[in-house]
Amino acid sequence: MYKFEDDSLMMHTDLYQINMLKTYWEKGIDKKRAVFEAYFRSNPFGNGFAIFAGLERIIHYINRLTFTESDIDYLRELGLYPDEFLTYLKEMKFSCSIRSMVEGELCFANEPLIQVEGPLGECQLIETALLNILNYQTLIATKAARIRNVIGEGDKLSEFGTRRAQEMEAAIWGTRAAYIGGFDNTSNVRAGKLFGIPVSGTHAHSLVQAYRDEYEAFKAYAETHKDVVFLVDTYDTLRSGVPTAIKVAKEMGDKINFIGVRIDSGDMAYLSKKIRKQLDEAGFPDAHIIASNDLDELTILNLRMQGAKINDWGVGTKLITAFDQPSLGGVYKLVSIENDEGEMVPTMKVSSNASKMSTPGVKQVWRITRNRDGKSEGDYVALIEERPDQLDSLFMFHPVHTYINKTVKDYTARPLLQDIYRDGEQVYQLPSLLDIREYAEQNVTQLWDEYKRILNPEQYPVDLSQKLYDNKMESISEIRQNVKEKAKQLEQEEA
Amino acid sequence: MYKFEDDSLMMHTDLYQINMLKTYWEKGIDKKRAVFEAYFRSNPFGNGFAIFAGLERIIHYINRLTFTESDIDYLRELGLYPDEFLTYLKEMKFSCSIRSMVEGELCFANEPLIQVEGPLGECQLIETALLNILNYQTLIATKAARIRNVIGEGDKLSEFGTRRAQEMEAAIWGTRAAYIGGFDNTSNVRAGKLFGIPVSGTHAHSLVQAYRDEYEAFKAYAETHKDVVFLVDTYDTLRSGVPTAIKVAKEMGDKINFIGVRIDSGDMAYLSKKIRKQLDEAGFPDAHIIASNDLDELTILNLRMQGAKINDWGVGTKLITAFDQPSLGGVYKLVSIENDEGEMVPTMKVSSNASKMSTPGVKQVWRITRNRDGKSEGDYVALIEERPDQLDSLFMFHPVHTYINKTVKDYTARPLLQDIYRDGEQVYQLPSLLDIREYAEQNVTQLWDEYKRILNPEQYPVDLSQKLYDNKMESISEIRQNVKEKAKQLEQEEA
Repeated sequence: MYKFEDDSLMMHTDLYQINMLKTYWEKGIDKKRAVFEAYFRSNPFGNGFAIFAGLERIIHYINRLTFTESDIDYLRELGLYPDEFLTYLKEMKFSCSIRSMVEGELCFANEPLIQVEGPLGECQLIETALLNILNYQTLIATKAARIRNVIGEGDKLSEFGTRRAQEMEAAIWGTRAAYIGGFDNTSNVRAGKLFGIPVSGTHAHSLVQAYRDEYEAFKAYAETHKDVVFLVDTYDTLRSGVPTAIKVAKEMGDKINFIGVRIDSGDMAYLSKKIRKQLDEAGFPDAHIIASNDLDELTILNLRMQGAKINDWGVGTKLITAFDQPSLGGVYKLVSIENDEGEMVPTMKVSSNASKMSTPGVKQVWRITRNRDGKSEGDYVALIEERPDQLDSLFMFHPVHTYINKTVKDYTARPLLQDIYRDGEQVYQLPSLLDIREYAEQNVTQLWDEYKRILNPEQYPVDLSQKLYDNKMESISEIRQNVKEKAKQLEQEEA
Repeated sequence: MYKFEDDSLMMHTDLYQINMLKTYWEKGIDKKRAVFEAYFRSNPFGNGFAIFAGLERIIHYINRLTFTESDIDYLRELGLYPDEFLTYLKEMKFSCSIRSMVEGELCFANEPLIQVEGPLGECQLIETALLNILNYQTLIATKAARIRNVIGEGDKLSEFGTRRAQEMEAAIWGTRAAYIGGFDNTSNVRAGKLFGIPVSGTHAHSLVQAYRDEYEAFKAYAETHKDVVFLVDTYDTLRSGVPTAIKVAKEMGDKINFIGVRIDSGDMAYLSKKIRKQLDEAGFPDAHIIASNDLDELTILNLRMQGAKINDWGVGTKLITAFDQPSLGGVYKLVSIENDEGEMVPTMKVSSNASKMSTPGVKQVWRITRNRDGKSEGDYVALIEERPDQLDSLFMFHPVHTYINKTVKDYTARPLLQDIYRDGEQVYQLPSLLDIREYAEQNVTQLWDEYKRILNPEQYPVDLSQKLYDNKMESISEIRQNVKEKAKQLEQEEA
C-alpha cells in the first residue's frame, strides 16, 4: 500500500492510456506526431453557450508531469510492463504543444476547446486528466452564468456549496469557476486564500443554539464583529428572528455595519416581503435580505416573479454539483496523425450514433463579430491553415442542415485557440482571476439576448469551413468504402 | 496571492465557522463542551439504504488540522481578526472526540453517522469538511450498491468515470467508494496505487485510428499484451470490429488471453446478442462482452430484461457524479451544549419545514437483528446512556406515525457509532479496503429483499427510543412557548 505522500498527478490517468503507450512504444510508433482535440457535444443545461474554465488547473497539472519512483514501483507490481518500458516512462519528458481557449471565453458544442499536438503516446497519457478538469470547471462556470443571468441588477451572488461539493477539490475549483461565471464571493476560506476570491459568511443556527436565546446570540455576534448579518430562522422568523435582529441593530447603532438578515428555510417569497416591511418600518431600508436554501436559476426566477424582496442570493448544492446536469461530457479525439511517409493525415471516428462522429483535421476556431456593433455572428471552425480573417466576405453554413447559411461582410474574425505550451514549454501566462471574470462578462455582453435565454435559447451558429466540411464528408465515404471492402474480405477468408 | 505550496486543509472551511469562533472566543465560551451530529434527511436515489463511506478521508483530514503561517497571514489580510485571535488560532490543537459509523456500515436517513464532542469552537471548525467528505463518498458507495444490485451474478463491474468526475479528488475517492459499494475494479491508475483497488483497461478508439485499419491495430495490441480486450465499434461493430477481433484472436492463439470485446456505442441489446453469436460460432464461448456508454442501474436493468448478452459492465459518468442525485444533503447539527452550570443540555433547531427539525440529545444508534437468522429488525436511536442491548424486549415505534410499532424479542442490539478519536487522539485503526468492501457486502445480505428493491423499497425502520422521543416533544413545546413569550415581549417593547 502506498501513502498519500507517494501521490502523484501523473498517475491520474486511465490504465488503457498506459497500455496503449506500451503498444506504441514496442511497435516504435510512440513518437509519431498526433493531434487530439477536446470538445463537448451539446451545451450544458440546454444553455445557449458555455464558459470555458479549467486552464489554470490544467497548467498546474501539466507542470507536474513526471512518473515518480513510487509510481514506477507500483506499475512494476502490476506485472504488466517490462523494465525497459518502465525506464522509458521514468525518463519521459512532456514535449507536446497545447493550444487552448483561454478561461472566460464563451464556447459552444462541437468546436475544439483544447488541442494537443505531439508524440502520440504523450498526447494519450494526458487525456484523462484534461477532460476531468475541463469538464467540471466549464460546467460550473456555465451554471454560474445561468444563475447570474436571472438575479437582479446589482444583486449579490454568494457561493455556499462546499459541504455539498463532490469531494474537496470540487469545492475550491468549483467556486473559482463560479467566480469566473459571475458569482461575487465564496464561503470557502481555502478558495479565498488560494485564488483571491472575496470571502463571506456570518453565523449558523448553532450560534443561536449556543446561547439561551436569539437576543443573547445576536448581541454576542454584533459585539464581536463589524459587518453583521443575522440568521433569523432558527425558531420563528417573523415573530422572533427579525424583531430580535432589529432590536440588536438599534441597540448597537453605529458600532456595527448592519448588512441585513439571512433566511434559510420557509417560504422565501412570503417571508422576504414581510421582512422587507419589518426592516423598512424599523428604519433599515438599506438592510439586505439574504436567502439560501437549495436555490438555482429556476427557483430564483420564480421567487423574483412573485416579487420576493431578496437582494443577496446564497447558492450552494445546485451550483457546485451542477445538480440538473452534473457532467459536461467532453471528449478528446484523435483528429490527425502522421503516416509512414511522415505526412499528417486527418482521421476520424465513425459511429452509428451520428452525434458521436468526430470531425477530422487540425482546426482553429474563429469568432466572427460584426464591425458595426461588435455583436456575434457565430463561430467558424476551419482548418488551421485557413485564414478567414483575411477574406472580405465569409460564407457560413450549418454543418448538418446546410441550407441554413449566410454571407457575412465587414466582420472581424478572432482566433480562439491560443498557444499555451510549445514543445513542452509553457508560453502562456495566466491573467489574474479578476481579469478572467471581467473577460467572461464582456464576452457575454457581446452575445445577442436570444442566445442568453435560460430556456430554449436560439442556437448560436458553429459552422465548419467549406474545406473542413468537404474533408469530413470525404473521410466518411472513404471509411465506409474501406469497411465494406474489409468486411467482404473477412467474409471470404472465413468461407 | 498564495501558491499551491501554501495550501492547507485547515482552511477548507466556511468563513462563518471562523467568525462564530471569534464570537465564542471573545465571549469566553469557545471551550464550552458541545456535541454535534451529522446525518442526512432522506436516503439518496430513493434507495432503501445507504452505505457509509468517507471515514479514511476524514481521518486524513483531521490528522492535518493546524493553521499554517501562511493561513494566518491570509486571515490577517482579511482585516477581520485581531492579532490575539490569530495567535489563538495558530496555537489551537484539535482535542475533540469523534464517534462514527465505520465504512461499509449500512446507514439510513435521520440517524447520526458521525458525532463530534468537544470545545464548541473546534467542533464548529470541522463541520464543512466533514460534510463535504461524508456527503460525497456515502452517496457514491450507495450508487455503486444500486448498480451492483441489478447486474448478473458473477458479472464484473468496472469504474470508468475519471474523465467525468467533478475534479480530480472526486475521481479517486469516488472510485474508492464505488469499490466499497461493490465495484470490482477501476480504470484510474492513481486510485489503484493509493488504495490498492484492482485496475483495468485496454485500449481506446484512438489506437484503432492510429493504425491503417482495425486488423493492424488489434494485431499490434495483441502482440504487446497478454490480457486482451478489443474495442470493436470504431467503424462498424458487426461487419468489421468483431470479425477482425476474432481473426486476430485466432491468429494469436495461446499467445494471448483473449478476454473479450468491448462496445461503447450503438444499441447494446441488439449488438451484444449478435456479437455473442459471432463469438460462440468462432469458438470463443468464454469471451466476454463488455459494455460501456452512459450506463446506470436503470439502463442495465432494461438491457438485461431485453436479454442483452453483456457480462462486464463499465460504468462512468452516471456513477461517479451520482447523476440522478449528485448530492446527499447531509447536515451537522448542535444537539447538546454545556450550560452556565456546567451541565450538558440537549438543544435543537426548530423549523417551519418539519423535515429540517433536528432531534436533541447525544445519541447512539443500535442495529437490531433477530437472533433466529441475523435478519434486520430496524435501527433504534437512543440517548447515549440507554442500553437496549441489556433489555429482554424492545418496543420500537415510528418516530412520526407512532401507531406503527412492534415489540421485538430475542434480538441482538449492536451499537453503530464507534470511538474514532478520544480527546483529539486517534484510537481507531482503519481496516483494509478489501475488508471494508466485504463488510458492506455482508451487511447488505442481512437486509430483507424488500429494502433492497431499487424502486419504491419498503421503508426500513429508524425508530427513536421513548426517552428520545419524549425529550424531543418536550423541547419543541418548550421552544414554542419561549418564542411566544419573547415575541410578546418584543411587541410590548416596541409599543
